[in-house]
Amino acid sequence: MNATIELLKSHRSIRKFTEQKIPHELLLELVRAGQSAATSSHVQAYSVIHVKNPTNRQKIAELAGGQAYVADASDFLVFCADMKRPTEASERTGANVVRGMTEQLLVASVDTALMAQNVAVAAESEGLGICYIGGIRNNPQAVSDLLHLPEHVYPVFGMCIGYPAQTPDIKPRLPVEAILKEDVYDDDQQQVAAFDDTMHRYYRERSGGNKDADWSHNLTPLFDTKLRPHMRDFLIERGFEMK
Amino acid sequence: MNATIELLKSHRSIRKFTEQKIPHELLLELVRAGQSAATSSHVQAYSVIHVKNPTNRQKIAELAGGQAYVADASDFLVFCADMKRPTEASERTGANVVRGMTEQLLVASVDTALMAQNVAVAAESEGLGICYIGGIRNNPQAVSDLLHLPEHVYPVFGMCIGYPAQTPDIKPRLPVEAILKEDVYDDDQQQVAAFDDTMHRYYRERSGGNKDADWSHNLTPLFDTKLRPHMRDFLIERGFEMK
Repeated sequence: MNATIELLKSHRSIRKFTEQKIPHELLLELVRAGQSAATSSHVQAYSVIHVKNPTNRQKIAELAGGQAYVADASDFLVFCADMKRPTEASERTGANVVRGMTEQLLVASVDTALMAQNVAVAAESEGLGICYIGGIRNNPQAVSDLLHLPEHVYPVFGMCIGYPAQTPDIKPRLPVEAILKEDVYDDDQQQVAAFDDTMHRYYRERSGGNKDADWSHNLTPLFDTKLRPHMRDFLIERGFEMK
Repeated sequence: MNATIELLKSHRSIRKFTEQKIPHELLLELVRAGQSAATSSHVQAYSVIHVKNPTNRQKIAELAGGQAYVADASDFLVFCADMKRPTEASERTGANVVRGMTEQLLVASVDTALMAQNVAVAAESEGLGICYIGGIRNNPQAVSDLLHLPEHVYPVFGMCIGYPAQTPDIKPRLPVEAILKEDVYDDDQQQVAAFDDTMHRYYRERSGGNKDADWSHNLTPLFDTKLRPHMRDFLIERGFEMK
């Protein structure tokens, strides 16, 4: 296992940070490393908002469901899927541009995620810690307003970056045999059951025997209600009409 | 710049591979490194199909628009957004599961992309080359049939992995100032114009002065037709109803 793979496998989300600030030149370098990720047809359908204004950091921390580290981390980035830049660039060359296709939503969302993951890896390679903040999709319109996001741009997730003030345990993942399948999709219930045992032990050990949970049970709040039911209308409103 | 950031910044897509095969244990290690990426609420909403069957490799190469390297690379992986595993696991605990939400499509697509990008970085850290294959979305139903993908699973992109038999130039990216914005979204037309100049020079130099293109003009085929107009119906058919 080389040092990079070791780094990737040592990822854990960091939610407590020291007061040390990331030098601006390093932050730029992390984003440049992000931009080096593959991008669909070179479209680079993303923008990153570096939220520096403390009042906005505080507001986003609350909008994301009360996640204090959004305000406390050295830096907070909002990764946006951006179809405005490329479609307008294309229009300026005289093209008749089609917008709002489902495919464009996928391209921009995936481009943004690949880019962000490179930023995360680059940050961790510098001893920084990160935490993705999907919670900005709790109130995506309010976040968009704060950041003056125009049409054809939507906030996919945020990311806290800073110097870690904690070393949480690495959370186990599903057995590789569950997720890697040979030639055809096959059933993975047995591996899921084994993973539930793993997670059950993991939670018990870390709670002094008090937490009686496993992976499958933990998924309930994600699926037993309509999670973020506003997302469809929000995306349509932003110009991602899923045509 | 540390070695990992240098590695990230040296990414280029590889489309020519030697005949050397990747040891199976290394491939597993790459996928495990992928699994270490952050995942929304630990849901791990992805599956990876390792396509070994040569006939299927050949068929997917054709379905993706005639990309021979899909068949030629040492290995070809199809990264699938998978909401079947977590929703069924949740159902087995007795939860009343809601499916088909737009938010779930985003979560699964982003989870899949973060995971895949870690696989890409891990592969490149081992001297391997990779190429994402978005072209599998040209004919996603045919690809899904070949791989026996069940409902609530959809193929997001493929990835060729192998030992590189070429060293293409690194393609320039937009200036970091265009994509990284402070506090609010602002106009980036000037930086786009500068990038068009960069790309114009890049294409001219590499074509002996014959290729007269830039970024903005190259985007035309992406936007002047309805790119992959089947994606909406395809996703709905797979159970990703974008409710």
